[in-house]
Amino acid sequence: MIIDCHGHYTTAPPQHDAWRKSQLVAFREGRPSPEYPAISDDEIRESIEQNQLRLLRERGADMTIFSPRASAMAHHEGDERVSIEWARACNDLIARVVGLFPETFIGVCQLPQSPGAELKASVAELERCVQMGFVGCNLNPDPSGGWWTSPPLTDRYWYPVYEKMTELDVPAMVHVSASCNPVFHATGAHYINADTTAFMQFIQGDLFADFPDLRLVIPHGGGAVPYHWGRYRGLADMLGKPPLSEHVMKNVFFDTCVYHQPGIDLLFRVIDAGHVLFGSEMVGAVRGIDPETGHYFDDTKRYVDAAALTDAERVQVYSANARRVYPRLDQALRERGQ
Amino acid sequence: MIIDCHGHYTTAPPQHDAWRKSQLVAFREGRPSPEYPAISDDEIRESIEQNQLRLLRERGADMTIFSPRASAMAHHEGDERVSIEWARACNDLIARVVGLFPETFIGVCQLPQSPGAELKASVAELERCVQMGFVGCNLNPDPSGGWWTSPPLTDRYWYPVYEKMTELDVPAMVHVSASCNPVFHATGAHYINADTTAFMQFIQGDLFADFPDLRLVIPHGGGAVPYHWGRYRGLADMLGKPPLSEHVMKNVFFDTCVYHQPGIDLLFRVIDAGHVLFGSEMVGAVRGIDPETGHYFDDTKRYVDAAALTDAERVQVYSANARRVYPRLDQALRERGQ
Repeated sequence: MIIDCHGHYTTAPPQHDAWRKSQLVAFREGRPSPEYPAISDDEIRESIEQNQLRLLRERGADMTIFSPRASAMAHHEGDERVSIEWARACNDLIARVVGLFPETFIGVCQLPQSPGAELKASVAELERCVQMGFVGCNLNPDPSGGWWTSPPLTDRYWYPVYEKMTELDVPAMVHVSASCNPVFHATGAHYINADTTAFMQFIQGDLFADFPDLRLVIPHGGGAVPYHWGRYRGLADMLGKPPLSEHVMKNVFFDTCVYHQPGIDLLFRVIDAGHVLFGSEMVGAVRGIDPETGHYFDDTKRYVDAAALTDAERVQVYSANARRVYPRLDQALRERGQ
Repeated sequence: MIIDCHGHYTTAPPQHDAWRKSQLVAFREGRPSPEYPAISDDEIRESIEQNQLRLLRERGADMTIFSPRASAMAHHEGDERVSIEWARACNDLIARVVGLFPETFIGVCQLPQSPGAELKASVAELERCVQMGFVGCNLNPDPSGGWWTSPPLTDRYWYPVYEKMTELDVPAMVHVSASCNPVFHATGAHYINADTTAFMQFIQGDLFADFPDLRLVIPHGGGAVPYHWGRYRGLADMLGKPPLSEHVMKNVFFDTCVYHQPGIDLLFRVIDAGHVLFGSEMVGAVRGIDPETGHYFDDTKRYVDAAALTDAERVQVYSANARRVYPRLDQALRERGQ
C-alpha cells in the first residue's frame, strides 16, 4: 500500500475560490460574508477524478492524506473571523471529497489562524474536523504571510494546539501559505525557508521535553535540512543539545517532496527511513514535466522507487510511517481490514 | 593552489568589538561615536596566527578571501552614519590583516547598508576598499536583520551597487548578517534562507539581462537550492524562463560551506564544478568536531578531496573558479608570479 502524506485540493471547483474572493471584498467593505455557494457532488467528483485521482492511479499510489490548498490558506487576509469562515469552508469541502472517495482520500485540516490571534479557534476547528474523521492538521508557523511576526514554534503561544493534538493523537504538518512579502516566492522560497526555520527552532528549543508524543511533519523533504545535516548536527552540539536523533528526530518527520533523484538519494543517505513519509505535494508546486527525464517533476514515487532502500525501508516510507505518525489513519484502514 | 573563498575575521581583537558596543551606546544616547581604539600589529598577528592561519595550514589550503565577521555587520543597528563608521572600521581592519599576511589573505569588504537607506555610501565604500586592494564585497539582501523589508535583489534599488561592481569588475557574496527576528536562528536558519531566497529571486527576475557580467556567489552551498534542484528547474519552467544554466548559472556561483560528505557529494552531483568555489566559512558558524568523523565540521577540504571530481574539476573548485570570479585576485596572484 502506498500512502501519499502530502496532497492539497488545488483543483477545487471555481465557486469555492470565487466565494473566497467575495468574502474578502465583503470584509474590506465592512459587509457580512456572502452565503457559501452550492457545489454539486458531480463537480467535486470531476475535479478529483481528472486530477489527483487520475495521477494517483497513473503513478501507482493508493491513498492521499488530503488537505486544503496550502497557498490559499492565506491567514494574513482579513481577520480571525474571516479565517474561521474560510477554514470551515475549506475543511468542509475536504470532508466532502473524503465522503465521495473514502478509499482514496483522508482529511487533514486547515486551521483558522490569524496574525496575532490566540489559537482558541484553531483548537476548536481541529476538534471539529477530527470529529468529522480528519487525521491531522496543517500548522502555519507564519500566519503573517512572509513577515514572520509570530513567535517560534517552541513558544508557549503554540501550546494550546499542541495540547489538543496530543489529546486527539493527531500530528501536524508545518506548512506556510502564500507570501505577501515580495522577497519570498511562495513555493520557491517561503515554503522551503519555513521548513528550514522550523527545524532550527526545534533544535534551539526543548519543545519535545514538554510534548514527548507530539509529531510534526516538515514537508518538502525538510527544506534545506538534510543537505545541511552536518551543520545542524554541529549547531545542536554548539548549543549544548543532545544529538538530533534524540533531541528532535523522535518527533519530527520529513516527506519526499524533493523533485529530482539526487535530492531523494541524499535524503535517504542522511535521514533514517523510519523518519521519511512518502509525499508528492501533488497537484501542487511544480506541475511540469522534467525535460531531463520525461516525467513529471512531482512524480516522487519514481525517485523513491529508484532510491537505495531495502524492501523493509520502502514499506516504512510508503505506508508504515504514515500509519504510525497518523494513528487515526491507521485505525481507519484497520477498520476496513487494510 | 587552494583558495578558500569564504573566511570571516571572527577572531578580531576584543577592542574592535568593544568599540562597536560603545558606538551603539553613543548612538542611542545621541552622542558622537568614541574614537576607534589602538590595536597593535602584534595583536592582529596573534589573532590570525592562532586561528585562521593555523587552521588554513593544518588543513592544507593556501589563501583565504577574507571579510569582516558577517554576523557582526548588523546593518539593522543604528542608522546609516553608524553603518558607515562600522563598515570603515571593519574593512580597515581587514586591510591591516592583508597587509600583515599578503600571501595568505585578500580582502572582501562589508558595505555600509542600512534599512531603507539608498546605496550611495555602499558604492563609495566599495570603491574605497577596491582602491585598498580588496577584490569583492559582501552584499546583505536583508539589512533589517530578519524582517526582510528591502526589495528583492532584482529590484532597481540595488542597481547602483551592481553598476559599481561591474565597473570595478568585482563580485559580491550574497550574505546576510545577524537575525533580530527570534524565529530565525542566524547561522541555522537566516543564512540558509537568504541563500535560497536570493536564488529564487534570480529565477523570477531578469537581472542578468541587465548585468550580463555581474557575478554573485551564494554561500553555504547555495542554501537549499542544490537539494531542491528539480524544484528550481521546474519553477523556472513554470515561470516561462530559460533553463537555469542560461538564466541564472552564468552569473551565480555556490561555495562548499556544506558540513558533511553527503551534502558535498550532492552539490557536485547537480552543480557543474565550474560553478562551485571552495569555501569553509572558517572560523565561523560551526566550530566543533564531528563525532562521526573525528574532524572539524567546517574542514570542508576533506569533503571536497573525497568527492567524485576529476583532477581538472578539483583545480576549478580549489582555485581556477575563484580566480575567474574574482579577477582582481587573479591579477594579484599573477603579479607575484602565481
